[in-house]
Amino acid sequence: MSRALLNGLHCSAILCVNHAIQAYKGASMGQSIVEELEPLFNPKSVAVIGATNNWNKWGYSTFTSALNGFRGKVYPVNNTESEVLGHKAFAKVIDIPGPVDLAVFVIPAAAVASVMEDCVTKGVKAGVIITAGFAETGAGGKKLQDEVLRIARKGGVRFIGPNCMGFWSASSDLRAFMFPLPVKDGPLAFVSQGGNVGGAVVTSGYMRGVGFHWYVSCGCAADIQIEDYIEYFGDDPQVKVILAYIEGLADGVRFLEKVKKVTPKKPVIVLKPGKTDAGAKAITSHSGALAGSDEAYEAAFRSIGVTRVESPEELLDVAIGFITQPLPKGRNVAILTPGGSYGVLCAEACATEGLDVIKLPDKVIAALDKVFPPRWSRGNPVDPAGDRNMVTFLTAPGKLLRVDEVDSLIFMGFGGFSIFAAMFLSADTGYAEGVASWVPSREQFRELAIAFTRALSSKDTAEIGKAIHPVVAGVASIMGIYNEEEVNELTQLVASAIASGRLNAPILISAFLPPGSATLAEMGIRNPPTPYEAMARFLAALAEQWVETYKKPVLTTTFFAEDQPRLQGSHYAYPSGKQAARVLIKMVEYKEHLETVGVYKG
Amino acid sequence: MSRALLNGLHCSAILCVNHAIQAYKGASMGQSIVEELEPLFNPKSVAVIGATNNWNKWGYSTFTSALNGFRGKVYPVNNTESEVLGHKAFAKVIDIPGPVDLAVFVIPAAAVASVMEDCVTKGVKAGVIITAGFAETGAGGKKLQDEVLRIARKGGVRFIGPNCMGFWSASSDLRAFMFPLPVKDGPLAFVSQGGNVGGAVVTSGYMRGVGFHWYVSCGCAADIQIEDYIEYFGDDPQVKVILAYIEGLADGVRFLEKVKKVTPKKPVIVLKPGKTDAGAKAITSHSGALAGSDEAYEAAFRSIGVTRVESPEELLDVAIGFITQPLPKGRNVAILTPGGSYGVLCAEACATEGLDVIKLPDKVIAALDKVFPPRWSRGNPVDPAGDRNMVTFLTAPGKLLRVDEVDSLIFMGFGGFSIFAAMFLSADTGYAEGVASWVPSREQFRELAIAFTRALSSKDTAEIGKAIHPVVAGVASIMGIYNEEEVNELTQLVASAIASGRLNAPILISAFLPPGSATLAEMGIRNPPTPYEAMARFLAALAEQWVETYKKPVLTTTFFAEDQPRLQGSHYAYPSGKQAARVLIKMVEYKEHLETVGVYKG
Repeated sequence: MSRALLNGLHCSAILCVNHAIQAYKGASMGQSIVEELEPLFNPKSVAVIGATNNWNKWGYSTFTSALNGFRGKVYPVNNTESEVLGHKAFAKVIDIPGPVDLAVFVIPAAAVASVMEDCVTKGVKAGVIITAGFAETGAGGKKLQDEVLRIARKGGVRFIGPNCMGFWSASSDLRAFMFPLPVKDGPLAFVSQGGNVGGAVVTSGYMRGVGFHWYVSCGCAADIQIEDYIEYFGDDPQVKVILAYIEGLADGVRFLEKVKKVTPKKPVIVLKPGKTDAGAKAITSHSGALAGSDEAYEAAFRSIGVTRVESPEELLDVAIGFITQPLPKGRNVAILTPGGSYGVLCAEACATEGLDVIKLPDKVIAALDKVFPPRWSRGNPVDPAGDRNMVTFLTAPGKLLRVDEVDSLIFMGFGGFSIFAAMFLSADTGYAEGVASWVPSREQFRELAIAFTRALSSKDTAEIGKAIHPVVAGVASIMGIYNEEEVNELTQLVASAIASGRLNAPILISAFLPPGSATLAEMGIRNPPTPYEAMARFLAALAEQWVETYKKPVLTTTFFAEDQPRLQGSHYAYPSGKQAARVLIKMVEYKEHLETVGVYKG
Repeated sequence: MSRALLNGLHCSAILCVNHAIQAYKGASMGQSIVEELEPLFNPKSVAVIGATNNWNKWGYSTFTSALNGFRGKVYPVNNTESEVLGHKAFAKVIDIPGPVDLAVFVIPAAAVASVMEDCVTKGVKAGVIITAGFAETGAGGKKLQDEVLRIARKGGVRFIGPNCMGFWSASSDLRAFMFPLPVKDGPLAFVSQGGNVGGAVVTSGYMRGVGFHWYVSCGCAADIQIEDYIEYFGDDPQVKVILAYIEGLADGVRFLEKVKKVTPKKPVIVLKPGKTDAGAKAITSHSGALAGSDEAYEAAFRSIGVTRVESPEELLDVAIGFITQPLPKGRNVAILTPGGSYGVLCAEACATEGLDVIKLPDKVIAALDKVFPPRWSRGNPVDPAGDRNMVTFLTAPGKLLRVDEVDSLIFMGFGGFSIFAAMFLSADTGYAEGVASWVPSREQFRELAIAFTRALSSKDTAEIGKAIHPVVAGVASIMGIYNEEEVNELTQLVASAIASGRLNAPILISAFLPPGSATLAEMGIRNPPTPYEAMARFLAALAEQWVETYKKPVLTTTFFAEDQPRLQGSHYAYPSGKQAARVLIKMVEYKEHLETVGVYKG
């Protein structure tokens, strides 16, 4: 990239962030970032400075948040209250009898510097300054912040903030937040220069069922820089994908140098606003950073393989893609849809994003001609045009994924499909009659079920397939499918999912047989899932199995945005074809970067 | 617009849709579209041709859907079954003894023409051809479709489809769908050239709490054209906003002529894919339409004031904006946010969309200086930077909306705000103690509550204000607010909401006082809402009140996308600042169109 662009990035270091050069002296003195941040990320004892019994102050919610889960000691520090929520309080940090690894500051800005002095005296090694009112407010706050930094440097205290919401360490089960956030452990790590965006992403992740091993709200980042966190996360084998919300960087060149060593190891996904004047102004007023030239950021991110996204939701969407799917080999995509208009919107989104909605090879068209009604789309997107045969629909992915020309599959309406399928299981429909006509007697059903359950304990796909074939064939016949090839294909898929442990008797029986506690009880299945849950789990298992069998991404979508999915095993359904396409192209681009730097293993 | 562009639009008429010229002969013979479509949209009797007892056929679900709710007669027609789900079946339409207004076709494509002949003989006036396999499949299907159209024309039968999912008439409570869809009556009307997109929008609307008076899945639109439906909806006073999903038009010029007469009366929001080759190909394969030149569509839509959107979700987002908000006078927007990074993303989105995130007038800055802590952003977005004073936050909108320079307000984190506020009401916090300290005795509380409840029956804002002032002042003091101006401002707002009927005693007491059934029971309030529900309803009432008082849009946002809101009264919270900005700009553009055509009343 050009020098001018690099300058555009570099010159963003003006306000609260221009002491970044001081910030990594410790690291240059021989300590690795992992060693240096150890007391911060894995503290044994925490002092909450400003902890209070007054429920209407941040010191109250910060203290209760720190108490929640953390296995080490938590000390309240308050110079007027002698006891906080039943814990003996100390007037000063230096009054605390035992060692203190981490100090959390929730006191007025003017008092932070002198308490930092106390921390240095006490030998505290790490801090989180939640307090706002520093560099982001202008020259006066900047001076205060410089003073705090000077004192911390002197004593070797590394700190998060100021003007932040705190952080989460899954290793220590520590929620050093200014208010409670729902968060759980998982394969992501996230550094956010905005507390609200950070909190929203962490909470959304919780609701989607995906967790974070680390989450840091870095605020003004006076000391530890965004690239330091990314470097730390990059070194942690528990972290699979790194997320960042960046308003401005202190030192763009330092960011490039550090992060380009991380992207070959794992994806780094960044949300970076500041393209517009209004956005840039808001950034300066918020975090005290300068937004910098957007062209410079775009070029810089591209050059080091950073994945750039456009919204907080997309940070999670793309992260989930990386943790659930293999990297696509190329840009060729096949689309399978239960309806034409979905296919239209998805094809349009794929083409807009730079994916190739390929012409399907003749052999695929021929294979689908055999099983779909003549009115099917006979092209990509693959649309059976209202064919309501679920068994056939579920064998189509195999036909698409097994050809070399297809790099990825988007399977639409998948989440909602289970609602539709579960309807078939309702006792109000003829499904129960259908099953009854196929299983001549209760006794025969019982025998079949016993053989079936026994087969599930096997790890041999062929053996399992043999045992479940009659069941699959029976269900298929209820759906009107007698095509032996179709039945064999679905049998094989289900058998593989059973062999790999993705499916078991309760899921299968609840998903494929009509509800009836007597039958389930006879088979020794207690607390069976509802037909809807079982069908959702059944479909998720198939999706996982396609990914494993063909080593290609299979992204699924729900019927509509309000049908919010959760991560199930390694399956997640996106709310629209557009979002699936956006995720897929980011994965393609990351794979292309890995090829460029020579670390892609295809 | 240029002739070349008009040609681009016009030339999209090729496949199934090129007989549109025949399609409106009836109308030209003196009947208005409303008269002509009366038997279709308000039928007294319906025949479902292909109704069956076989649960695994569309004829089963179509028949049960038609039976659900419809107040007229529903006749099953089946040439092999003598009775369907307990209803006497007829082998042919002509065997039905009474009159039939509407015939729903769920039979193989090859059989449709001869049944249409029967319908003509019987005097049926309207049809819905759900059956697929017509023009969208190519030349053979096109020939079949032409034949069906010829017969229908001859007999004066107007019909929806073929290759569609059916339609909904709230007037007749008729769900002539191929499978059940959750739908309710409301101010929207929707025509969709895609059944899946249509079903998703209708279902999403249902989940968001917004209903449709009409919904038509128009499929190949062999007879009635998309512009005919729009004209019909335009004439219906119950319809406030019209939505359309369009893949291709039969006759672009006819569309322009008809729809340009509708947009001055009410907004017409259109989703139209086909910008990419992949999208255009998928369109032809799906609906048999040609996508046409996207530039031509864009210019045409703009010239007649059609609001174009980019996704099914946005169809609803923008429609909800139109039904809940007044049109903004201009592009100037103020942003109020509980967190800086939200403000950054929202300001960026506003600027990107063409809204003006204005510099706030000095008098607004001065007014906010008085009530926010010194660290507040002192600019637009307005960010109190972690001030946790809810009372002050709730008086900020008035300060922003009352100045002429602000045309609209985006109030962020509003939906989730109620979660946060409800936390304060939990008995675990000090809130209950706060209330106890403010209300000296139970007896005094009781007296206050009685006076308060009495005031709620008044319609005089000043009188109500007088009665509730001590309560608002008390709650404010618990929050640490003693600023008389603040308290008066909130009092005035709450009093207005009470006078207009938006707030009542159960909501207020449950929202502002700690939970306690004894207190509520003493005040005669049975089944009080939960604190969370009450707070959500309280905030919605304030939002409605700002809109009514200042006659300006106040768009609110939730904390994160997963916090899905429902329409509450005329309040709806969008999942992000970006979506709020997208809605706002569409409203600005529509208002500008109304000015251009001279019908805007400011």
